[in-house]
Amino acid sequence: MYPESYPRNQWYVAAHSDEVGRTLLDRWLLDEPVVLYRKLDGTPVALVNRCIHRQMPLSLGRLKDDRIECGYHGILYNAEGRAERIPSQPHVPPACRVTRFLLFERWGLVWIWMGDPDKADEGLVPDHHWITDPEWGTVRGSFLMKARAQLLNENLLDLSHLEFLHAGSIGTDKIAETPVTTEFDGRVVRVSRPMYDIDCPPFFTKVMGITGRIDRGQVAEYFAPGFHITHVSAKPTGDPDDSRKCSQKAIHCVTPARRNTAHYFWCHARDYKIDDLKVAQLMRQGMQTVFQQDVDASEAIEEIISSYEPAYPIELNLKVDAGPLQARRLIQQMLAAEKAG
Amino acid sequence: MYPESYPRNQWYVAAHSDEVGRTLLDRWLLDEPVVLYRKLDGTPVALVNRCIHRQMPLSLGRLKDDRIECGYHGILYNAEGRAERIPSQPHVPPACRVTRFLLFERWGLVWIWMGDPDKADEGLVPDHHWITDPEWGTVRGSFLMKARAQLLNENLLDLSHLEFLHAGSIGTDKIAETPVTTEFDGRVVRVSRPMYDIDCPPFFTKVMGITGRIDRGQVAEYFAPGFHITHVSAKPTGDPDDSRKCSQKAIHCVTPARRNTAHYFWCHARDYKIDDLKVAQLMRQGMQTVFQQDVDASEAIEEIISSYEPAYPIELNLKVDAGPLQARRLIQQMLAAEKAG
Amino acid sequence: MYPESYPRNQWYVAAHSDEVGRTLLDRWLLDEPVVLYRKLDGTPVALVNRCIHRQMPLSLGRLKDDRIECGYHGILYNAEGRAERIPSQPHVPPACRVTRFLLFERWGLVWIWMGDPDKADEGLVPDHHWITDPEWGTVRGSFLMKARAQLLNENLLDLSHLEFLHAGSIGTDKIAETPVTTEFDGRVVRVSRPMYDIDCPPFFTKVMGITGRIDRGQVAEYFAPGFHITHVSAKPTGDPDDSRKCSQKAIHCVTPARRNTAHYFWCHARDYKIDDLKVAQLMRQGMQTVFQQDVDASEAIEEIISSYEPAYPIELNLKVDAGPLQARRLIQQMLAAEKAG
Repeated sequence: MYPESYPRNQWYVAAHSDEVGRTLLDRWLLDEPVVLYRKLDGTPVALVNRCIHRQMPLSLGRLKDDRIECGYHGILYNAEGRAERIPSQPHVPPACRVTRFLLFERWGLVWIWMGDPDKADEGLVPDHHWITDPEWGTVRGSFLMKARAQLLNENLLDLSHLEFLHAGSIGTDKIAETPVTTEFDGRVVRVSRPMYDIDCPPFFTKVMGITGRIDRGQVAEYFAPGFHITHVSAKPTGDPDDSRKCSQKAIHCVTPARRNTAHYFWCHARDYKIDDLKVAQLMRQGMQTVFQQDVDASEAIEEIISSYEPAYPIELNLKVDAGPLQARRLIQQMLAAEKAG
Repeated sequence: MYPESYPRNQWYVAAHSDEVGRTLLDRWLLDEPVVLYRKLDGTPVALVNRCIHRQMPLSLGRLKDDRIECGYHGILYNAEGRAERIPSQPHVPPACRVTRFLLFERWGLVWIWMGDPDKADEGLVPDHHWITDPEWGTVRGSFLMKARAQLLNENLLDLSHLEFLHAGSIGTDKIAETPVTTEFDGRVVRVSRPMYDIDCPPFFTKVMGITGRIDRGQVAEYFAPGFHITHVSAKPTGDPDDSRKCSQKAIHCVTPARRNTAHYFWCHARDYKIDDLKVAQLMRQGMQTVFQQDVDASEAIEEIISSYEPAYPIELNLKVDAGPLQARRLIQQMLAAEKAG
Repeated sequence: MYPESYPRNQWYVAAHSDEVGRTLLDRWLLDEPVVLYRKLDGTPVALVNRCIHRQMPLSLGRLKDDRIECGYHGILYNAEGRAERIPSQPHVPPACRVTRFLLFERWGLVWIWMGDPDKADEGLVPDHHWITDPEWGTVRGSFLMKARAQLLNENLLDLSHLEFLHAGSIGTDKIAETPVTTEFDGRVVRVSRPMYDIDCPPFFTKVMGITGRIDRGQVAEYFAPGFHITHVSAKPTGDPDDSRKCSQKAIHCVTPARRNTAHYFWCHARDYKIDDLKVAQLMRQGMQTVFQQDVDASEAIEEIISSYEPAYPIELNLKVDAGPLQARRLIQQMLAAEKAG
């Protein structure tokens, strides 16, 4: 059964870096309305998106240098969330403030910490430097999906679905039947499926230029509660050297919006044809199409399970679910730790 | 007050026969998602429309001969609902199966039994042979209405509404004031309203070619929980012989989809001008228009009563409600019997 | 926190007079469906909009002189709500009736009393004669807003928002910082903000023809539970006589529809250029635009507070909220009195 809540003392991706700027960005994250913007010096800011006076979304106000002026009665909040001015009275009480959320920006993503600020540890953010590494070519996109986050987390940890959900693009026969190894090192859930002498999927041929039989590497890494790196490689089977090997890192960030909706931010980095604009375009469109299928599946399942609530339809786990089940356990452990803490 | 649940150990119409084929058909019935298709030999199949593994709707998968392959991780279910293959593992546990619902197909309708299969008795399906009888001309249609099933059941058992809801098509003055006889023979609720020397409604003139005063027969039969036959006849008043008498059987199948929605499948059989394509077309359009008015009324009432839930606005029964009230009692008895059984 | 219910033994505006006529008007008011129409002699009538027989909205029926015939089974209700005819039976039981609500029509508005009729006192309806007074020029409009009524009541009692929400039209700098006086005389909450030597807002220049600095009067009067008069005046600062003074009365009627929706009926009367059609047109468009901003703010807040229910996000009251808080108290007192009574 899927977790019924989300751990708050964790980092979640709030946005792609290029989404946050001098326009107020409104976004629900972990059941809270959040407004995001950048200060004049470029630092990103996240505040709860409701004025403490009468709950007006601050995102409907105006950015005044580093401050937000509420669009209703003009309260001026600084980037710490403290009111600096209340137009209708000279005195600004200290309680006139809104929650400011900690942000951490690196490698093209803006991470948010919505729990206890004293527990925030930037060292917990996983390495994802490929996104902005000039040695890699990156494309990106995002979805707001009508499905709970965990449905996508589990999708990404059981890639046997490639053969069926993504048939004709990145899926081929024999993927699902190739056995996986599932490991957990105390931090990362790692599901590996090395495939040898397997068909090259049509989309790989298009972007990599490889045809015929390939050795295909696939390692899905999960950093709870919502970050995934899918390491993919392909090279012609039997090719003695690795010079024609193509590598990709698909980075998936799954952040709950409300209970039954989630943000899906994705980046895709490749170490080949990194300056080829046509390949970049193909990759962006191709990945958006493939990930849309994952979103569609998650939404179809959400519709089913929501309709049975508060009951939950009978569910059968397979061997290949070792990864997804480990993900559920990790989230439950995080929730239990927060409750105990 | 309307029944709050639906008896499950009963036959309900799931589809018109011609809706079920080699394309997977997704339909909610009695609060369950159902997928319908035909095997290569033409036998109709109904399975619960969620894979036991991760609740993916099977209707989003692929039909492979007589089997469905789930579109997510490729589990292959046979027409009995048993998994025959799990791509990611060699062993198929016996628990890997989905509910198969019994179907019974006759005379153009596919009936489904969603309760205890051991209690299913095909003899309970009422005779409705006119639909496919070559001596009768039949047209058909369907609605998915945003109203609970019982609202339409009661509409069909109190046809005094013809004079008002269907004025200008099949309604005329004096219908409502003609007294009805309500009988119950232990199986069928039968509401009879023989009308003599009454105006011929405009729609009858159009399809039957009759004008002036008519004797109009009207018998509404209800087979709980959701099947109705409205027997209609018309002949010129005072006509000594019956050669100009036109007879019609309107067959109405009301199947709950979810709590506040229902499927309405209708067929209309006539014993006159059975090969007249223009009359068939007029009849199809005319009946669809008339039944749409019934759907509209049911939806308008649903909106009212839903807004008062869990309370229920005060209701006054009339003499003409003997039939509708008997229908409620029958459904309550069926529910009580299931609870006791 | 906003009141969770609405007092019923009070007058609310149900409609502009010119909305009610010989066409059946369907409108939810205080969680009840209501149908409104006029008798042949012009008297307005309001009945609960559901037939007592099977809850069919009477607004889908037909007006027959002063009576409504239900569109389903033809029950004929008179303007008192009593059934006079049931087509399917000769006897009309006394219980066959629907609630009739008291109405009071004056000065262009139709007021409704949905509580105990014995407590209805027409003297409680506040004076709003300017709407139909030939010495004043009036325009009007209405909204059905997706927000609880109280959000708009409080908007109208804290007009410091003009400077921010209506900047560029009727708002200017220095409005919010001008102190207000809040009084309560036992009946009316009165918030006064006299502004001297202040900028003339662009919209005033357009309709009044005044430019430069002005003395601007602003008195917001609130008659609980949902009626407001905003008295506005403007004249050039330092102008020795009052001949160039322009006065306006903005009348706002806020009536709950369902729990999270409300009707907003507005009228705007001016004592200048009363026969100038171009000014009337400017005023109608200008006020509709300004009030739409109030509706938009209320709806944005409703979305926030609804998402936290049954909890309520933390709220901070300012000095300027003396008026809004008095309004909440008045409604709570009305509710308490009804409960005790």
